[in-house]
Amino acid sequence: MTDYRAPLDDMRFVLQEIAGLGRIAELEPFVEATPELVEAVLEQAGRLAAEEIAPLNQLGDLQGSVFQNGVVRTPEGFRAAYRHYVEGGWNALPFDPEYGGQGLPWALASAVSEMWNSANMAFALCPLLNMGAVELLQHHGSPEQKASYLPKMIAGEWSGTMNLTEPQAGSDVGAVKTRATPAGADGSYRIVGQKIYITYGEHDLSENIVHMVLARTPGAPAGTKGISLFIVPKFLPNAEGGPGQRNDLRCASIEHKLGIKASPTCVMAFGDDGGATGFLVGEENRGMEYMFTMMNNARLAVGIQGVAIAERAYQQARDYARQRVQGRALGSKDPAPVAIVEHPDVRRTLMLMKAQTEAARALAYYTVAGMDFARAHPDAGERRRRQTEVVELLTPVVKAWCTDLGVEIASLGIQVHGGMGFIEETGAAQHYRDARINPIYEGTNGIQALDLIGRKIARLDGQPVRAFAAEVRAFVEGGNGGGTASDLPAIRAALGEALTAFEAATDWLLESFARDPREAASGAGAYLRALGTLAGGWLLGKGAEAAAARLAEGTGDAAFLSAKLVTARFYADVVLPQVAANAAAAAQGAGSTLALAEADF
Amino acid sequence: MTDYRAPLDDMRFVLQEIAGLGRIAELEPFVEATPELVEAVLEQAGRLAAEEIAPLNQLGDLQGSVFQNGVVRTPEGFRAAYRHYVEGGWNALPFDPEYGGQGLPWALASAVSEMWNSANMAFALCPLLNMGAVELLQHHGSPEQKASYLPKMIAGEWSGTMNLTEPQAGSDVGAVKTRATPAGADGSYRIVGQKIYITYGEHDLSENIVHMVLARTPGAPAGTKGISLFIVPKFLPNAEGGPGQRNDLRCASIEHKLGIKASPTCVMAFGDDGGATGFLVGEENRGMEYMFTMMNNARLAVGIQGVAIAERAYQQARDYARQRVQGRALGSKDPAPVAIVEHPDVRRTLMLMKAQTEAARALAYYTVAGMDFARAHPDAGERRRRQTEVVELLTPVVKAWCTDLGVEIASLGIQVHGGMGFIEETGAAQHYRDARINPIYEGTNGIQALDLIGRKIARLDGQPVRAFAAEVRAFVEGGNGGGTASDLPAIRAALGEALTAFEAATDWLLESFARDPREAASGAGAYLRALGTLAGGWLLGKGAEAAAARLAEGTGDAAFLSAKLVTARFYADVVLPQVAANAAAAAQGAGSTLALAEADF
Repeated sequence: MTDYRAPLDDMRFVLQEIAGLGRIAELEPFVEATPELVEAVLEQAGRLAAEEIAPLNQLGDLQGSVFQNGVVRTPEGFRAAYRHYVEGGWNALPFDPEYGGQGLPWALASAVSEMWNSANMAFALCPLLNMGAVELLQHHGSPEQKASYLPKMIAGEWSGTMNLTEPQAGSDVGAVKTRATPAGADGSYRIVGQKIYITYGEHDLSENIVHMVLARTPGAPAGTKGISLFIVPKFLPNAEGGPGQRNDLRCASIEHKLGIKASPTCVMAFGDDGGATGFLVGEENRGMEYMFTMMNNARLAVGIQGVAIAERAYQQARDYARQRVQGRALGSKDPAPVAIVEHPDVRRTLMLMKAQTEAARALAYYTVAGMDFARAHPDAGERRRRQTEVVELLTPVVKAWCTDLGVEIASLGIQVHGGMGFIEETGAAQHYRDARINPIYEGTNGIQALDLIGRKIARLDGQPVRAFAAEVRAFVEGGNGGGTASDLPAIRAALGEALTAFEAATDWLLESFARDPREAASGAGAYLRALGTLAGGWLLGKGAEAAAARLAEGTGDAAFLSAKLVTARFYADVVLPQVAANAAAAAQGAGSTLALAEADF
Repeated sequence: MTDYRAPLDDMRFVLQEIAGLGRIAELEPFVEATPELVEAVLEQAGRLAAEEIAPLNQLGDLQGSVFQNGVVRTPEGFRAAYRHYVEGGWNALPFDPEYGGQGLPWALASAVSEMWNSANMAFALCPLLNMGAVELLQHHGSPEQKASYLPKMIAGEWSGTMNLTEPQAGSDVGAVKTRATPAGADGSYRIVGQKIYITYGEHDLSENIVHMVLARTPGAPAGTKGISLFIVPKFLPNAEGGPGQRNDLRCASIEHKLGIKASPTCVMAFGDDGGATGFLVGEENRGMEYMFTMMNNARLAVGIQGVAIAERAYQQARDYARQRVQGRALGSKDPAPVAIVEHPDVRRTLMLMKAQTEAARALAYYTVAGMDFARAHPDAGERRRRQTEVVELLTPVVKAWCTDLGVEIASLGIQVHGGMGFIEETGAAQHYRDARINPIYEGTNGIQALDLIGRKIARLDGQPVRAFAAEVRAFVEGGNGGGTASDLPAIRAALGEALTAFEAATDWLLESFARDPREAASGAGAYLRALGTLAGGWLLGKGAEAAAARLAEGTGDAAFLSAKLVTARFYADVVLPQVAANAAAAAQGAGSTLALAEADF
């Protein structure tokens, strides 16, 4: 069993100094997000996460969710924890107040979501999927649909799921075969088909489960242009709005997975007895378009899972390194053994974990905050700018880069433990197993890289990424503002070098995409990694600047602020050189990546 | 269930063109290793690995070894497979013919060992540990000890284990507390103590288990200078040389692990009933010194496990990518879905897996071949040179770099599978779990990095690494020998750049080690990574040169040889840029790595 403590100081620092929560709270819809309220939310969420949800993490992994006779039982304690989560109003945080939401900024909701996911990623997946369903209905549901589903789903009494994947339709959602046939005068449809990999497709946490299902209507065009979106509830709402008649859908089995074992991953069978009743959302054949409206949000949420698992792995490794005594201090005459945190290689590993986790958090919150600005800023140009240059551009980077880091950091966490890390009871191995799903679901990281170079860069002639680079350049050239700390010039210099390499890769990307998208795509993964690494370094640099300014003023916790400078400097010294390596790999590798005949693999 | 096929063409290529097996076979002790014999060994081992041992891999993971009432039962099929392995004489391959060994080169034995480990790493650990014990006895056993243990252990009828670790003595072996008290006229000792993490400490594959145990005799000096080595057999040999009286030792429990579940990891209790009978190897207090004689070998063997798991993961991902049809070809008008191997990002992932696996294999076999030359070369200077500049210098690199790559490549293997990769039945996840032990055992990779910078570099004023760099430089400047292929100049140029960065890091390393070993140690991991990446690229470059020469001559399989050029070129384009990044990280990071107060983590 391992402890988790919400890193409130780090979260506050990022929210305030990097994500701009203060400015968000000045925007009209968010004026209730006063510093006092924010503080109360963070502290209370931290308490629930640490005291009730985190202690269920290892037990949940051991017991797993269990499938029997069509019923899924979540592990011991999950039902009570979920009830407390709902009763505390936690599910409603960022949603529309008209339907019972609290209307708080997404930036704040993301910090809170990080806590649930650090505490227990398998548990937190239920609200995460529900969030996607709520987003869809908020944007595209009819007034009646909103009225009948949103209050329950926003409260968390009902949970939502996303039903996209079928055996032949994974990354290629357009290959979906599930059929939806108009079923009569009430406008409902009969849904028949099988879906796989449905997270929390069946479970015992909420009284109803609202499936958002992609299916094809008769005569629909082939591919993504012929996909419609349906609400297919487990229980049809009755006259009182409660769960009524059981719908014709069932969980056929759950998967035996590497990780997140407490979270049931279901094969869902719709319409075995003639057809499940489904209700069209919006118009026919526009399902994919609707999905995109919630995709940014869901992808950012998965990116935050990457941050969350990295944080949890880091805390555990750090605590172990402080407590485990082994070997004398290097270069010391004293034969007494010391805590392994004293050993330089362990320290390097912890710093890699810490610095990259903080960078990933900074980028994730910054991007999520972009959603708040893009929605609520009074200036239309600024809204548009935030939407394209921050949210759209960086969402695939947050999803892919943060989740790759989650895996790498969980692996480092095992290493810090030595042999103990390989023993399941220690708990470090669970993070390594759990983390591994994040680069896969909600669009594999390869899909994110394609999204980045295609829709977000090439299609816009590179404008958003040029604007991003200009912001980094402005920071690099921003003088030594923020006090006398000598780390800042070094950070700026390292960022400047990385940026130059990245800009060359961007030139290559735009040229090669125009010449042959296959060539550009062969370097997309490395390019995305370069962008994430650079962006993380830039935001740590901004944090360092703010920390230096506060140190110079003499305000705040000096040790905490100094650590921010050290961490940003470490990242600049040790991590930022990877930007040039990845930029070069992207720009140089197309020929040799594509050269081999298929038979020669 | 997934298939494995021994990559015989790749193995032959590395053995011949990179490791110099032809020249090894000209050395006196190895004249029996004719091309025909080598071919027969590789083919037959490949068959046993693919047909009998590999099919047990997933089953072994599912069932695990089971502990009950002091007895450990290995999974179904393991006993029969082990019997066939012994009957085929496979265990005896590299050992002393005087005791029944076949005296074949270690280079060849390593290729064969790669096969067992690709097929089933948990199974192959039993012979791997036995090998360490045999090595110890071959070098340090008395004639009587050799006569009574080696024939059985070399045959594999008895297996050996290494008993080093205790709860308080992991990386710090000097903290061992197990006691050994002289027990009477026969010169035996009574051994009392507990050992943990003992791989195959108890099992049902062999008729006896010979534990090599580190313990302290009365009045021994503190630390590593007071440790002695004992033979402590499960059954004391009887008058006929068979297993006789049961010794006072037992398996107290086995661990519940992330991976290699078929391989029992035992807590061993020695002397619960007064003391286990042990026999001193060599002299008292020289146990650690003896351990070092087998350590190179064991560490190389673990490095080869890294290669093996990477190969297995690669084969599985490649096969899946060829067979899984999903999405249309990028830039194509044809809406028909294609095999995902067509998609550039999947191709990039497969190339990363393939190129790095081949580089790791090249470095591992090359280093192991160094042992053959160091032992058998007629020229004493050349023997010494191979020992210091190849075996000693590169052993920690093979151990750490190849095993880190094993983990990373297994992770990429999951990614290629998408959602399927996270489902245990697919088998890709098992490699990711199994691979994770390799960076930990047989000296953590952090310990390897310290060994590299301390014993292998700084203590020798950098001579071996300078000699290594000079060899790489000679290759870089070696003109465009080997035909007209345009890839070779590009490979040389990339290596030249990487080498320059690496040499700067070496300068930094030597200076900083002299100034403050903590500073040097803080960059040791990144420096090791740079060295491994560079060395792998150099050897792939040598392979490419040989392939180009053969293509120019018109001998050999042109498609295979061309693929070698492409793969080396890909590595140069995409992987080699990491050398400069790691070199910079090592040289720049000391200050920020060590700056944080312990409380500020």
